Amino acid sequence: MLLNVKRAMEVMKRAGVEAIVATSPENVTYVSGYRSFSQQIIKATQVYAVVAAREDCKPVLVAPIGDLDCMADRGPIAPVKAYGVFHVFSDSAGESRPEFDKFLALLSDRRFETPQQALSAALKDLGIGGGRIALDSTGLTPPARQSIPAALAGYSVTEGWSLLREMRMVKTPEEVARIRTATEIAEHAVSAVLSVVHEGMTEIEMCELFNESVMRRGGVPLLTCIGVGARSSLPNVQPSPAAVKRGDIIRFDVGCVFDCYCSDIARIACLGSPSEKAARYYRAVLEGEQAALSGVRAGAVAAGIFDIAIRTTRSAGIPHYARHHCGHGIGLECYDMPSISPQDATVLEEGMVINVETPYYELGFAGLQVEDTVLVTGDGFEYLSVSDRSLRAV
Amino acid sequence: MLLNVKRAMEVMKRAGVEAIVATSPENVTYVSGYRSFSQQIIKATQVYAVVAAREDCKPVLVAPIGDLDCMADRGPIAPVKAYGVFHVFSDSAGESRPEFDKFLALLSDRRFETPQQALSAALKDLGIGGGRIALDSTGLTPPARQSIPAALAGYSVTEGWSLLREMRMVKTPEEVARIRTATEIAEHAVSAVLSVVHEGMTEIEMCELFNESVMRRGGVPLLTCIGVGARSSLPNVQPSPAAVKRGDIIRFDVGCVFDCYCSDIARIACLGSPSEKAARYYRAVLEGEQAALSGVRAGAVAAGIFDIAIRTTRSAGIPHYARHHCGHGIGLECYDMPSISPQDATVLEEGMVINVETPYYELGFAGLQVEDTVLVTGDGFEYLSVSDRSLRAV
Repeated sequence: MLLNVKRAMEVMKRAGVEAIVATSPENVTYVSGYRSFSQQIIKATQVYAVVAAREDCKPVLVAPIGDLDCMADRGPIAPVKAYGVFHVFSDSAGESRPEFDKFLALLSDRRFETPQQALSAALKDLGIGGGRIALDSTGLTPPARQSIPAALAGYSVTEGWSLLREMRMVKTPEEVARIRTATEIAEHAVSAVLSVVHEGMTEIEMCELFNESVMRRGGVPLLTCIGVGARSSLPNVQPSPAAVKRGDIIRFDVGCVFDCYCSDIARIACLGSPSEKAARYYRAVLEGEQAALSGVRAGAVAAGIFDIAIRTTRSAGIPHYARHHCGHGIGLECYDMPSISPQDATVLEEGMVINVETPYYELGFAGLQVEDTVLVTGDGFEYLSVSDRSLRAV
Repeated sequence: MLLNVKRAMEVMKRAGVEAIVATSPENVTYVSGYRSFSQQIIKATQVYAVVAAREDCKPVLVAPIGDLDCMADRGPIAPVKAYGVFHVFSDSAGESRPEFDKFLALLSDRRFETPQQALSAALKDLGIGGGRIALDSTGLTPPARQSIPAALAGYSVTEGWSLLREMRMVKTPEEVARIRTATEIAEHAVSAVLSVVHEGMTEIEMCELFNESVMRRGGVPLLTCIGVGARSSLPNVQPSPAAVKRGDIIRFDVGCVFDCYCSDIARIACLGSPSEKAARYYRAVLEGEQAALSGVRAGAVAAGIFDIAIRTTRSAGIPHYARHHCGHGIGLECYDMPSISPQDATVLEEGMVINVETPYYELGFAGLQVEDTVLVTGDGFEYLSVSDRSLRAV
């Protein structure tokens, strides 16, 4: 289960809401486990997931009828209130199979004309006939936003976006497993590139190798910043025909999506031996990152981790080091909450998954960065990213 | 240029607005040509593009400072009002290159604290100190939506989402070129699969081959529905271990994204000879699609094209045929306006790019579908999808 039921109940109770309605693709997936295919193709498609503030509550989905085949084909999902029109035909002489029978059964349920009517029915099914509910507005099109007040006339509606961000901070075991797999896929793809890199290989070629490795293992490329030599100093370096030369730094800031969950790691290699300055500066960013990680545990404050990262990287060899953040939560989005930054007073809790990083970008010289993903535990953390953190000479 | 300047001016004048502010990734790209990398990784990142209702007007961007390296690296883009904090360092001893110098120049410009302040400055730079402006709200986070009224206190703000959808309907030559390339990549990938398909090959294997072919030619997979045998009758069929058998229909409803523009085509093959029924029904859907296409020209009404598609497919051999739409605009989104459906009274114009399709899904039997992308011309249309439309025996 992706939804952290206990935490969701606490957040809803504290906010004084009887239910929450998720509307963005990430939030719908979080609440229900379901990712709509229609929405991937037709961005304006309205898909909602509703859960009530009761421990025993099962989420209810609102989705277009065009989504029902994927729901039927992909095993058990939440009950659904379907809306709209979609024509499929059936012939009694046709092949009978579980996925078709289940699809037919879903198609024979009551249909609603609009997503708003379906949402209203979903709330009533959950026993919520009125009162205060939280609505994540980020997946609503402007026309949908306009029709919501009439459809939810009996309810007092408050914004649910930040409540869902808060719920999503502490991960369930299923979420951790998916982030771990996404991270493994990215780490494997880095190794795949490094095992064949040679002088003259271009950033474009390395990115292609990376992306192919990711896709072959069931991931979707999300973040493929691979910069060589001086170009490694461009923070979001995009694949170019620049070719790697002997002595060049190769910076990987990379990640992918696996089963809706993200990974984001950074590793540094050098073709041959790094310069003395690159080696010295890399030791400083690694020391800064490792010191920050040693402060990670339940009860630590995000801003405190940031302070350790900056202070240590400075004293370890980059006295002018500065950053706006030294990490972030990760999950359904590459940047979940909290932010490891001076403004973020979030107290870390067991089960949070965070990235810690100390990137240093010096234009015309190099970008040096190590970024790890860890699961916060009661007395420390567990690495989800496990590959070699040294400045790897290849 | 992606923005259809003449049409944009007409739409803004008709709506009585002095400028439009795009905020969703697609709309920002449309107005400015720019796609933010930060936003791809951090969905909540605020990036805006503003254009005034004046023929000579150049768009202005609002973007986080973290975007400036990509802007500098990727050649000429619109002027930008940057906000936020991002640390990069420079060492006079470092390598000097155009992309670094340009990045440094962008970094030395005035910085704003918040995207709202940057937006207000962008409007003032465009000479718009007050009056009515249209704001696409679909890219705003709830906190950004809350701060907008204060930041735009001197303006009367109306929703811009539907205005941008209307502008985007008639494509510029650059947009057509990108859709054409995205379509070529998808058609090539279908051929790549069909050239190696053999009895026992699974849907998963075919989807992997398709996606690899797309990526190798610079596309990003978007829509990879490849269903074999009875599973081809699932409209959104997702890759499964089902293996193709002799006599099986293979339905491709596939597309990709190239340089932010989408493709979406459908083709049918059969491993060996199709059944008499499949051949007969396919002739009907092809006849329906071709009849609908023969009605496509500037001045035709979307709903009229739909009528022809339904009527012809019925009379050509599927008397019970029904659909909710028989096509859609395509561009920055897979479903742009108009919709080829009974409710859509849009009059087609030269330069629109639309898909026409007559899919037929019979559960347990097969899905049969042909879908083409065409550019509407004064007296007809030009195919952007050009591959063999027959039921291909392989």
